[in-house]
Amino acid sequence: MLYVVGIGAGSLGGMTSDAAKALSAAELIVGYTKYIELIRESFAEKEFYTTGMKQERERVEYALKEGEKRTVALICSGDPQLYGMAGLAFELSSAYPDTDIEVIPGVTAAFSGGAVLGSPLTNDLAVISLSDLLTPAERIRRRLHCAAEGDFVIVLYNPSSKNRSDYLARACDIILEHRPPHTVCGYVRNIGREGQESRVLTLGELRDTAVDMFTTVYIGNSETKLINGKMVTPRGYGNV
Amino acid sequence: MLYVVGIGAGSLGGMTSDAAKALSAAELIVGYTKYIELIRESFAEKEFYTTGMKQERERVEYALKEGEKRTVALICSGDPQLYGMAGLAFELSSAYPDTDIEVIPGVTAAFSGGAVLGSPLTNDLAVISLSDLLTPAERIRRRLHCAAEGDFVIVLYNPSSKNRSDYLARACDIILEHRPPHTVCGYVRNIGREGQESRVLTLGELRDTAVDMFTTVYIGNSETKLINGKMVTPRGYGNV
Repeated sequence: MLYVVGIGAGSLGGMTSDAAKALSAAELIVGYTKYIELIRESFAEKEFYTTGMKQERERVEYALKEGEKRTVALICSGDPQLYGMAGLAFELSSAYPDTDIEVIPGVTAAFSGGAVLGSPLTNDLAVISLSDLLTPAERIRRRLHCAAEGDFVIVLYNPSSKNRSDYLARACDIILEHRPPHTVCGYVRNIGREGQESRVLTLGELRDTAVDMFTTVYIGNSETKLINGKMVTPRGYGNV
Repeated sequence: MLYVVGIGAGSLGGMTSDAAKALSAAELIVGYTKYIELIRESFAEKEFYTTGMKQERERVEYALKEGEKRTVALICSGDPQLYGMAGLAFELSSAYPDTDIEVIPGVTAAFSGGAVLGSPLTNDLAVISLSDLLTPAERIRRRLHCAAEGDFVIVLYNPSSKNRSDYLARACDIILEHRPPHTVCGYVRNIGREGQESRVLTLGELRDTAVDMFTTVYIGNSETKLINGKMVTPRGYGNV
């Protein structure tokens, strides 16, 4: 049995009780080193298997293989679907037909970070990762254009990394073709963790702001506004 | 103090421990009648205030007013931002300057339903509500066009109601202008609740399927596939 478990963003308080139950039921907990650190103390009696970044395939294959004979939890930060391991677990599952897979959802960074800023995600939204390791850059650019044209609230994951320090600026340039520079934006760094930081700013300012890979970025729609320092997208209830 | 709390979709197991803590801390719990029913038993000693649908403004104003003198939790299903009450709480907050607002995120239906289907939400996604009570129909149509053109996985909330039984069919027609009829789709009804049902089907079949307002609908991107009955969007890790 393999549970693919979303542990939420940051602190354990963001984990659902179904997720905690799956971790308790598991004999072996598999995950990326940084995420295992977040839960190791609370599940100290368990066996752990950790691998580093870019070793996703090895990690998931090990979890599927062990799942043939015992209960395994493969943990992901946030939700296990979104940029997580659940898809890969199903993709590789045919070689491990005796391992049942159950996905336990979690709060993805878009929502835990949004709550820090106020309520930017009250209405239709698009989530886009700026990482071009697994998605062609041209497809990312097209999605940015489409999301901006559709007036979605846009959430950007992986807005930066060592080798792509200008990706957020380039994404903002695309969005600025469709939206004015005073569009309300925000970002949250280290969501739910020590050193959490957040800021609300305009799209024009965001374009010239450096963020790191631990940051989630929010671009408001045409109605998003600043209320008492909070980033808020209204949804018309106020007019009813 | 006002906590705007996402209780997740369906069963209590989908609630985070931060959400449970906020409900425990509250003296008064405010919410839509149906959602209060889900938690009443677990928090039996609390005072409750419930209102029906379309009484959102009254409900939020009461919660803000009571929050001036005691700790109040305003509950929403799923996440409190997405089509929830957090935005309205901030919009109305200027009349209640003594009430601090804290948003406690939850797992929105997109992710809890996606976990039932497999892993449709592994990559960039767009969430759109088909309800035109609060968003002009023309804007919804534009968003459907843009999301389909951008090859996002699309999640549809409020796909139907008594007065809009053909909305899903019309949305599918728009998406069919951009995507082939064999596109992998799915839906989940009564997520996490008694009577949960789910189905994986093609976009062409979905177009002619009747769903109700308790259903969340998923339209795959160009890469989404069916793996052993599950709806799975890959993200390239399999090729690494």
